[in-house]
Amino acid sequence: MPETGTTLYVCTTCKREGDDPEGPRAGARLHAELVRQAGQRAEGLRVEPVECLSVCKRPCTVAVASPGRWTYVYGDLDPEAAATTILDGLMAYDGTPDGIVPWRERPKEFRTGVIARIPPFPPLSPLPEAAQ
Amino acid sequence: MPETGTTLYVCTTCKREGDDPEGPRAGARLHAELVRQAGQRAEGLRVEPVECLSVCKRPCTVAVASPGRWTYVYGDLDPEAAATTILDGLMAYDGTPDGIVPWRERPKEFRTGVIARIPPFPPLSPLPEAAQ
Repeated sequence: MPETGTTLYVCTTCKREGDDPEGPRAGARLHAELVRQAGQRAEGLRVEPVECLSVCKRPCTVAVASPGRWTYVYGDLDPEAAATTILDGLMAYDGTPDGIVPWRERPKEFRTGVIARIPPFPPLSPLPEAAQ
Repeated sequence: MPETGTTLYVCTTCKREGDDPEGPRAGARLHAELVRQAGQRAEGLRVEPVECLSVCKRPCTVAVASPGRWTYVYGDLDPEAAATTILDGLMAYDGTPDGIVPWRERPKEFRTGVIARIPPFPPLSPLPEAAQ
């Protein structure tokens, strides 16, 4: 995966039923697995732990942002199984100019787990003041 | 409201029960009211219509982004009544360095309607490659 400035934010506060109270939370386990797998197959990706993405009702949760691309937030992700799927989805995302992957090419977990999307920021078009 | 580069995205596709099938959708009505009120009291704010923020289960929906600040997504907003509250919330947001308004100072609709938040993007810290 080339260096494209894409950042994957992973909520490490997310809890899931059955988490060992003595062990790391589900979100922290997902973050660790994403760091491990990204090191093998997505070296250009920045993986950042975040204390809370405010999607507490649908753990585990990640967000992906990239210059000039839409930001996406996903939830309902399995801490043990989702890392491979997330990186697959990010490869497809990074292969688009705007971050919008055709619906059928998105991993199932991204289709059902989308929480929100936000247009590219800063806006690609100049602010009205800057255009004058 | 000063020019701070803050952008308010408003989903104009959001529908609400009771929408007149011949008239503008709830999201489009909310957008129009936000543009009207922003012109009176928040001239530095950029209000952008968006076709879909992918929060279709919790209309109406907006997102706010600003350079160096967290991005927030809000839902469950009333198309007729929420514009004033949203602008109040954005004034508080714009008054912070990072976009994180103390919990008690947030409008009730922002406390109950938060859908997600995303860290400041691009990241404030340099990428590892750039630091070398």
